[in-house]
Amino acid sequence: MECRLRFYGKGEKSMRSETIYLYENRTDVTLTTYVLEDSPEMLAGKKRPAVLICPGGAYLNCSDREGEPVALRFASMGYHAFVLRYSVYGEGKEIDYSKLSEGMPVKEQTQYPMPMREIGQAMLLMREHSDAWRLDAERIAICGFSAGAHNCAMYETNWNQPVIYEYLKTTPEQIRPAAVILGYTLSDYLFMKGCLKDQDPMALGLFSACNVSFLGEAEPSDERLALVSPALHVTKQTPPTFLWATAGDNLVPVQHSIRMAHALADHGVPFEMHIFEEGDHGLAMADQTSAASLTQVNEDAAKWSGLADAWLKKRFALDLPEMTEFERMMAQSASATER
Amino acid sequence: MECRLRFYGKGEKSMRSETIYLYENRTDVTLTTYVLEDSPEMLAGKKRPAVLICPGGAYLNCSDREGEPVALRFASMGYHAFVLRYSVYGEGKEIDYSKLSEGMPVKEQTQYPMPMREIGQAMLLMREHSDAWRLDAERIAICGFSAGAHNCAMYETNWNQPVIYEYLKTTPEQIRPAAVILGYTLSDYLFMKGCLKDQDPMALGLFSACNVSFLGEAEPSDERLALVSPALHVTKQTPPTFLWATAGDNLVPVQHSIRMAHALADHGVPFEMHIFEEGDHGLAMADQTSAASLTQVNEDAAKWSGLADAWLKKRFALDLPEMTEFERMMAQSASATER
Repeated sequence: MECRLRFYGKGEKSMRSETIYLYENRTDVTLTTYVLEDSPEMLAGKKRPAVLICPGGAYLNCSDREGEPVALRFASMGYHAFVLRYSVYGEGKEIDYSKLSEGMPVKEQTQYPMPMREIGQAMLLMREHSDAWRLDAERIAICGFSAGAHNCAMYETNWNQPVIYEYLKTTPEQIRPAAVILGYTLSDYLFMKGCLKDQDPMALGLFSACNVSFLGEAEPSDERLALVSPALHVTKQTPPTFLWATAGDNLVPVQHSIRMAHALADHGVPFEMHIFEEGDHGLAMADQTSAASLTQVNEDAAKWSGLADAWLKKRFALDLPEMTEFERMMAQSASATER
Repeated sequence: MECRLRFYGKGEKSMRSETIYLYENRTDVTLTTYVLEDSPEMLAGKKRPAVLICPGGAYLNCSDREGEPVALRFASMGYHAFVLRYSVYGEGKEIDYSKLSEGMPVKEQTQYPMPMREIGQAMLLMREHSDAWRLDAERIAICGFSAGAHNCAMYETNWNQPVIYEYLKTTPEQIRPAAVILGYTLSDYLFMKGCLKDQDPMALGLFSACNVSFLGEAEPSDERLALVSPALHVTKQTPPTFLWATAGDNLVPVQHSIRMAHALADHGVPFEMHIFEEGDHGLAMADQTSAASLTQVNEDAAKWSGLADAWLKKRFALDLPEMTEFERMMAQSASATER
């Protein structure tokens, strides 16, 4: 097989997909960009809203299944998309889940409040690049899954607290999220503690490892558990939130989503929630874009992204003119002919 | 505004988006890649199908509105996506449509059969990179819009003809498209000729400019028009085809799609067609991902991509196992506890 024409090179006209390290001396905490191409035929320099995605993984890893496939879906809604790999125990390496029950040394860098501060750091990076990326920094949504959703829920209840903005030497206004999307979130660690008696050894090992990573101990006090339970800290300043989950989730009970929704309702925060009857934990896009097996494909749950699209559009719709110049010219020519 | 943590660099874990030039001495004919990231958590090296996109633009330009936004939608279905900017009169520069009626010098490089040969060239490039990109070269769909759809329709009726495969010094098997998606296509230039009497001066100018670009003359003979009318050349070897259009299209009449579908039905080629009642020509994704104005947003027509997704999945569904290893471990732990 041979072909006549062949020349390889790098050119223009494609999205800006690159990875930015958040720390100078670490490669595990990264912001991956999916910045949409602009064109004189489309927005001609106008800014687009953005969605920042936090994959899940029990604060042990950041699942690739909840990264790029999600970013591409939001990019295909017309938003710049970003994947944040925040501090987790595995530091970007693969985790051997069969060995979690063995003793794990405590790490400082993965513990509360670092993961949620890194969301703020990513928001600042996006704001700093808002001209270069044509990004509307006033309309940044954050979207997480499982532990990544917990991180987003922590952020949406703490973005206006000194623990984040003073650490980042900024003001709350600079890092305010415009909307939040939570997929099968954890929201209440005190409730979770009560559920553990029904869990099997592998799930228990996972939760205890998650605690070591995120709280520095396998069995934290109720006071510490309450501190990291966003359902207990919702206020009127919590941004509008979209939640989705499956009632069939047997790892993170659906009550976490329900309790978060209850708190949002209590405080008059606009929210939307979709709970699908069936489906395991960790469905991500729930279709073949993120699935490694057929159990990760679920036609019902896969509707979440279309529902989130419609919900987000109410806040993030682009401000488009009635007609383009070319359309006006064509219409004038057509109507002149009819007369 | 200042933030403590800041370091910019290039890292891993993101899609491969780059542009490849098809000619050594020209920058206007390009293949832009949207090659999905792989992960041990997802396909772990298995190959994905791909979709090659041909934007429209009357063989005068390649519209950005029918490029990246479409590629991102197919990428978000789990397929590698590619945008081919084939030879057009504007050579990648902006066109002043108000000056099209003035004399246009003929160009050789944009004329039939070059644009469809470039699809074959892109198919070969994709096949050559199939290992590096983890791309299933036996499952490449081509998807075009307007003149780009005409180019795809030309290709699907000529891929097994010497005019393409001999020129590329290859065999038909190496460049066979597995499926074809045509958005508001042209398919029958003889029929088109009969419609022109109803058109306004601007539309007439556009068609005559298109003819100069693609056929080297403003008023080609019926014989030449028949040669470039794919609806007249469908055979049993024409691949399965998905068509969509709007009955309200007043630039390229919907009969072009209908005539193509009729020919596919006549020859027993599997096909699917969706014609939405309302909507202008050139809707692309018909939503804010590709729109420059509100006339380019159409909720009904926007359903085409979901319909194409379902149709494509019948041919391109990934071959996924029932369960992953991790899921098996979790399930065993849970069932051991129940006993």
